[in-house]
Amino acid sequence: MAKQTDINYKLPSGFDIELLPGEKRLESYLLTTISNVFERYGFTPLETPAVERLEVLQAKGNQGDNIIYGLKPLVAEDGEKDSESDLNRGLKFDQTVPLAAYIARHLNDLNFPFARYQMDMVFRGERAKKGRYRQFRQCDIDVVSRSKLDLLYDAQMPAIIAEIFTAIDIGQFLIRINNRKILTGFFEAIGVEKSQVKDCVTIVDNLEKIGENKTKKALAEIGIDRATDIIEFIKLKGNSQEVLTTLEDKISQLQNNQTLSTGIAELKLVIRGIENFQVNPDNYCIDLSIARGLDYYTGTVYETSLVGYENLGSICSGGRYEDLVGTFVGEKMPGVGISIGLTRLMSKLLDAKLLKPMSSSPAQIAVLNLDPDLTSVYLEVSQKLRRSEINVLTKFENQKIGKQLQQADKLGIPLCLLIGKDEYDKGKCNIKVLQTREQIDISLENLVEKVQELLARDLR
Amino acid sequence: MAKQTDINYKLPSGFDIELLPGEKRLESYLLTTISNVFERYGFTPLETPAVERLEVLQAKGNQGDNIIYGLKPLVAEDGEKDSESDLNRGLKFDQTVPLAAYIARHLNDLNFPFARYQMDMVFRGERAKKGRYRQFRQCDIDVVSRSKLDLLYDAQMPAIIAEIFTAIDIGQFLIRINNRKILTGFFEAIGVEKSQVKDCVTIVDNLEKIGENKTKKALAEIGIDRATDIIEFIKLKGNSQEVLTTLEDKISQLQNNQTLSTGIAELKLVIRGIENFQVNPDNYCIDLSIARGLDYYTGTVYETSLVGYENLGSICSGGRYEDLVGTFVGEKMPGVGISIGLTRLMSKLLDAKLLKPMSSSPAQIAVLNLDPDLTSVYLEVSQKLRRSEINVLTKFENQKIGKQLQQADKLGIPLCLLIGKDEYDKGKCNIKVLQTREQIDISLENLVEKVQELLARDLR
Repeated sequence: MAKQTDINYKLPSGFDIELLPGEKRLESYLLTTISNVFERYGFTPLETPAVERLEVLQAKGNQGDNIIYGLKPLVAEDGEKDSESDLNRGLKFDQTVPLAAYIARHLNDLNFPFARYQMDMVFRGERAKKGRYRQFRQCDIDVVSRSKLDLLYDAQMPAIIAEIFTAIDIGQFLIRINNRKILTGFFEAIGVEKSQVKDCVTIVDNLEKIGENKTKKALAEIGIDRATDIIEFIKLKGNSQEVLTTLEDKISQLQNNQTLSTGIAELKLVIRGIENFQVNPDNYCIDLSIARGLDYYTGTVYETSLVGYENLGSICSGGRYEDLVGTFVGEKMPGVGISIGLTRLMSKLLDAKLLKPMSSSPAQIAVLNLDPDLTSVYLEVSQKLRRSEINVLTKFENQKIGKQLQQADKLGIPLCLLIGKDEYDKGKCNIKVLQTREQIDISLENLVEKVQELLARDLR
Repeated sequence: MAKQTDINYKLPSGFDIELLPGEKRLESYLLTTISNVFERYGFTPLETPAVERLEVLQAKGNQGDNIIYGLKPLVAEDGEKDSESDLNRGLKFDQTVPLAAYIARHLNDLNFPFARYQMDMVFRGERAKKGRYRQFRQCDIDVVSRSKLDLLYDAQMPAIIAEIFTAIDIGQFLIRINNRKILTGFFEAIGVEKSQVKDCVTIVDNLEKIGENKTKKALAEIGIDRATDIIEFIKLKGNSQEVLTTLEDKISQLQNNQTLSTGIAELKLVIRGIENFQVNPDNYCIDLSIARGLDYYTGTVYETSLVGYENLGSICSGGRYEDLVGTFVGEKMPGVGISIGLTRLMSKLLDAKLLKPMSSSPAQIAVLNLDPDLTSVYLEVSQKLRRSEINVLTKFENQKIGKQLQQADKLGIPLCLLIGKDEYDKGKCNIKVLQTREQIDISLENLVEKVQELLARDLR
């Protein structure tokens, strides 16, 4: 077959997200683990198409056209108005805008509060660089209601985050919690002009990245002179109850501000809820510097860091929003949600060796081909194992036994089954445990039980 | 919140594939069932990006530009050569071209035979009509090797198809098997010009759709006068062994043709393999009229029909190809694969009421909120149930009990847990089984065991 050498078959820049088998199996495992936790809390799976009308994608405006990929059929679609020249559809760049559109499309068929999870691919035409992709998978959950949404939903999110990262087992993590109203109210209470509050929030949100001195400088630059008080305030840390007490103490000395008091009251309720959800206190804290860059958060906000690997950035973030989802319905629809950027996170965790690829094959045993005359036996035995829910790779090629063992080992298959003519005549077979080099001779009758027993030893 | 009334939030034509929660849960269940079977046979999961270079998508030529969606950033990507005017990337329209590119990209990291499954979304800019979508999910498996691939891989495919459709349980199905070489060789042997063989194959491939008379007419139109013999030949049916015997008998009367003999020999081996895989003989047959439209099949071909619902078309098809995957590597890489067009199939099966949506929530029990003072109890009990792998929806809203029960019922949650002040003080609780209206009073201590027992009764 002639090679079509002139074709560049590499992936386009930013789309190089495809995984080798062992990495993809790891991703499948993570997706299953994450979705199991989501379902444990009653969230239902959802998927929306990759394509929406441009007017829907552009409805929010804030993310902007600079990341949207439009769809352009190479040839106009037969008989359609949506022709080549009509660039009126694009690829979704997040899962929130499509969620809002989904709710509008199916308003009367949904039950509220609507709690859904979504693990779709999203597309962003940003400058491609290491660890930033133009297509990636996000694992999002949101619960959205009509008019009101209890604060316990905010408290439930850290319970879900904690359960996920405990299950994934990548080391100690810390969920940092704040309420945007506290920051906003605090700035108002110390006399920052309303028009400057948003800038102040943005500046302190970067404290961790740029450090205290640069934060002070940035505040001074926009004419804020109480930088020291501000930094002292947002650096309040410690046991959640202590922070709350200090906070109430502090604000009693400030000018009364409704937003600030509401923020603190909400945070107290959320923290109490988290305690009632029995989240391990080592896994969460109040951090008044957390603001989350995105404009749309209005109350509780979360970031999660991996202890000792804070440089990886937040591994799970989110918050409460009042005005994000009701756009198309024309109703107030408060919601709270969190997101795990799985493609990016997994890439970082693999690089940091906090995760490692799984074996390249899901097979738990390889049935080797030692004698072409016994092929029907190999097939029969394979099917018998499969009926007992064991994943089997049957070798059809009658290659040298050493080569077959080597191939099974390369694929990370823990067991090999060997049945030669002599063994078969005696109703026997031989199981080879690749890792320990054990060889087990048993009767064919006891094969399934023995394989199950060996696999239960959790070899790899 | 002001409604943005001018925005049309409907999905673009052909992309209306999003599902309501109960339907999406059904799809998730089907995907899990299908992938479990794929893994049972040692196939490893794979996913390739939605986007490839246009030159890769166009490498095969045969599917053509008329279905490819190009990617057009609304604003040129910052600092990239791939600018707005360079339409050099597109959405994948199948999973075979990307598989070929994937193999080229990772040739030295893969083990051959490479057996992978892939259940990605693909995109086709075809005219949208009922049951034909512009984005849809295909569940594909292929096994690809370098230079040679044993025919037992062809025999394994029907075993996999049978296991999937037995598990999905949508009624009796029939896998119809043929070998393209038999059709080609037969036409050659009865004296059809080589240049006309392809046309003949295309015509008889449509026999089922257009009927005998039209088939004869179509053959006559291209100057083939042995229509009756042809139809008699391709209509050979019955027990696989009988068909093979008749077939050998028939060809002994024909001019010797190497392609025909090879085809029959291959089919014999495949049928014997299928028998050894212990596939139920009711689930497969030889059908010499099956050709599969696609040019690239070179040997074994499969179609699967649902008995009594043949009008749904083939629910799983595929075949053996010699020259499809090696394009970018410049090597012969024979493969065999099958595909289930899941989006379309599920839509048809729901319409035909052969499948029905699942409940709208994965929750197995709803913990109702009867008394706001007991919230911490509800959260504690919910977490206890979750630790026993039970999916729980905790109600945070203190609404009327009737309304809470009704909501749980709407979501299809089988059990509700009621704990009022009096019950709690006595260390008791009440489980309501929504379907049977049973009410069970038990001590809180025995709650988990009782819930597990009730769920094991498989209520819905």
